[in-house]
Amino acid sequence: MGSKPDFSAGMDDAVTRLRLVRTESVGPLTYRRLLARFAGAEEALAAVPELARIGGRASAPRIASRGEAEAELAALQKLGASVMFLGDALYPPFLAEMPDAPPFLAVMGDVRLLSSRSVGIVGARNASANGMRLAQNLAAELAKSLTIVSGLARGIDAAAHHGAMAGGKTIAVIAGGLDVAYPPEHETLQRQIAENGAVVAESPLGTAPIGKHFPKRNRIIAGLVVGLVVIEAAPRSGSLLTARLANEAGRELFAAPGSPLDPRSQGSNDLIRQGAHLTETADDVLANLPDHPGREGLARDPLFRHARSGLAEPPALLPVLETDAAALRTARRQIPPLLTADPVQVDEIARRCQLSMAAVSAVLLELELAGRVETLSGNRVAAIAAA
Amino acid sequence: MGSKPDFSAGMDDAVTRLRLVRTESVGPLTYRRLLARFAGAEEALAAVPELARIGGRASAPRIASRGEAEAELAALQKLGASVMFLGDALYPPFLAEMPDAPPFLAVMGDVRLLSSRSVGIVGARNASANGMRLAQNLAAELAKSLTIVSGLARGIDAAAHHGAMAGGKTIAVIAGGLDVAYPPEHETLQRQIAENGAVVAESPLGTAPIGKHFPKRNRIIAGLVVGLVVIEAAPRSGSLLTARLANEAGRELFAAPGSPLDPRSQGSNDLIRQGAHLTETADDVLANLPDHPGREGLARDPLFRHARSGLAEPPALLPVLETDAAALRTARRQIPPLLTADPVQVDEIARRCQLSMAAVSAVLLELELAGRVETLSGNRVAAIAAA
Repeated sequence: MGSKPDFSAGMDDAVTRLRLVRTESVGPLTYRRLLARFAGAEEALAAVPELARIGGRASAPRIASRGEAEAELAALQKLGASVMFLGDALYPPFLAEMPDAPPFLAVMGDVRLLSSRSVGIVGARNASANGMRLAQNLAAELAKSLTIVSGLARGIDAAAHHGAMAGGKTIAVIAGGLDVAYPPEHETLQRQIAENGAVVAESPLGTAPIGKHFPKRNRIIAGLVVGLVVIEAAPRSGSLLTARLANEAGRELFAAPGSPLDPRSQGSNDLIRQGAHLTETADDVLANLPDHPGREGLARDPLFRHARSGLAEPPALLPVLETDAAALRTARRQIPPLLTADPVQVDEIARRCQLSMAAVSAVLLELELAGRVETLSGNRVAAIAAA
Repeated sequence: MGSKPDFSAGMDDAVTRLRLVRTESVGPLTYRRLLARFAGAEEALAAVPELARIGGRASAPRIASRGEAEAELAALQKLGASVMFLGDALYPPFLAEMPDAPPFLAVMGDVRLLSSRSVGIVGARNASANGMRLAQNLAAELAKSLTIVSGLARGIDAAAHHGAMAGGKTIAVIAGGLDVAYPPEHETLQRQIAENGAVVAESPLGTAPIGKHFPKRNRIIAGLVVGLVVIEAAPRSGSLLTARLANEAGRELFAAPGSPLDPRSQGSNDLIRQGAHLTETADDVLANLPDHPGREGLARDPLFRHARSGLAEPPALLPVLETDAAALRTARRQIPPLLTADPVQVDEIARRCQLSMAAVSAVLLELELAGRVETLSGNRVAAIAAA
């Protein structure tokens, strides 16, 4: 995204980009595809209605107005927040490597901290006293040389933030808006982190977090860090999702072992069984931390062998400038019947249609804007059932 | 050892073999070398004084008398114990694969149990309530299909024996003599195991166990089992020694994870870090248990990479029948200066002297009987400092 204008391009461009972010059916992947295909946010925004129509949408998608975007940016400025778009110079480079990196982030505190070398520490909300002590000690020790990222949740997250602030810097990634304290009892902690570190939000101001926001928050944690430490995670917990996302993004995984009789240890023990580094002290982390996520030559552990998706692949970003009209028409006819609720690889679609990736990508963009398909991790797409 | 006479050869041979076992400077490895070199125990026993003299011993080693051996066997018979020598048909085959397998064992209970498919469960004496509960549950579950072997110690061992008896069979390997209850509070448990399973001892009757007996006991546990489960083991604990011996013998290793804040978990967590199977339930054990220790094709984990010895190698058992007198004289001159208190591989000695393994082996036997060298695990030898 290096060719995209950075934040210094000014308020006008920020307004346009935020309008695109807030437009119906434009998620992180669609935003990325649009900016890869068009010369700028202005051109992409203008093309949205026509693309959605071609994709089969009955009514035009709702596009955020200039006034709405201006109001949101003004409110953030009044709060004292910084904003950054994917492609900005200040945008954290490791997060930008996530296929579904958030196109827009609002930050209270030191934005440069987001680009510092960091480690995530996450775990159970109903953590044991021992687990919280471990998180706090580990964070305090690691914060001497790294930034500690967590999710401001009860239990392990809060202990990690507290530990980190004792000896260094911490980043809280929150699921709701920057002006919403969640959980309510962490209002003071959130303010302290904003003053000494950074609080990061993808959701618009005023958003009270609900279920769907937490997985999005988790992918930001996974994207910011070079390594993730999981302390006490039950099976099917949010911390395990964060671990899966971090692993898919090539980040190093660490887990603290715990008693087999404690359900809160089962998920973290299972991570170790699958290849995460067994972690008792800060040295266990420091000795196994890569210089760079997914660096060449790093022997990746065979984690999540049974997960449905493989390591992260960048989404198809090829422009369709060279795609001729005939190929596009063929693609528009052949692709929709191939899509079901069961996710399929984009590569697989291109192979079966014998079409160029550019043509497939162009048609998928139209279908996304029409609200007919969604793009998933691992460069896969699935049909959305008609409402 | 298949050509050696089995127990049915009768009392006379048993007396002679026990005399050899109880002879000064005859340890498990020397016993094995002697029986490999001579036609039988009778011939080996007769040769001991001359071999020790050639090896440089001033006075003849003390040889157990016929009367002493007869008395020991009679006392064992009166107690109701069975006896077995290395090479007997009933001798447990996996234990026989240990380079330093005990030449003689006394057993109270069902001797056939020693040759059944078994798993060891060992751990801390000062175990946590959780650790003991885990050991008991795991043993009860595994005892449905396997024999459970442990060391009758306080804590994890006792919990494993109790759990095993609830659902199946257990073997207690003890450090002292069969007629000594140790620890004293396990007297009832020891009797119950003798009645329902088997209690195994290498030490003579009347032996009250002291420090040096426990590592010997641990190698028997390691030798009997196809897999060993470690639950709560502090660094440098006896359970970790058992794990090392089991690994050297190609047995599969399992360890239960525990809190990094509990010192009792550090050793077992470290085993996992080094490649032992993280174990929470009986299924974790059953899914990773080999058909046979050290079977071909089994991918061995890179355990104990920093240990001084590699995987177990059988000691040099080549007879010296073909060794000519000149080679022997050369070996007797060249080998002693190569030996220091720092252990050296037998292969390395043969290589540096450019002598046959048969000649090296013959001379090492003489030096062992003279009390000048001791053979260690990994087919290594070290000089014993003159008293």
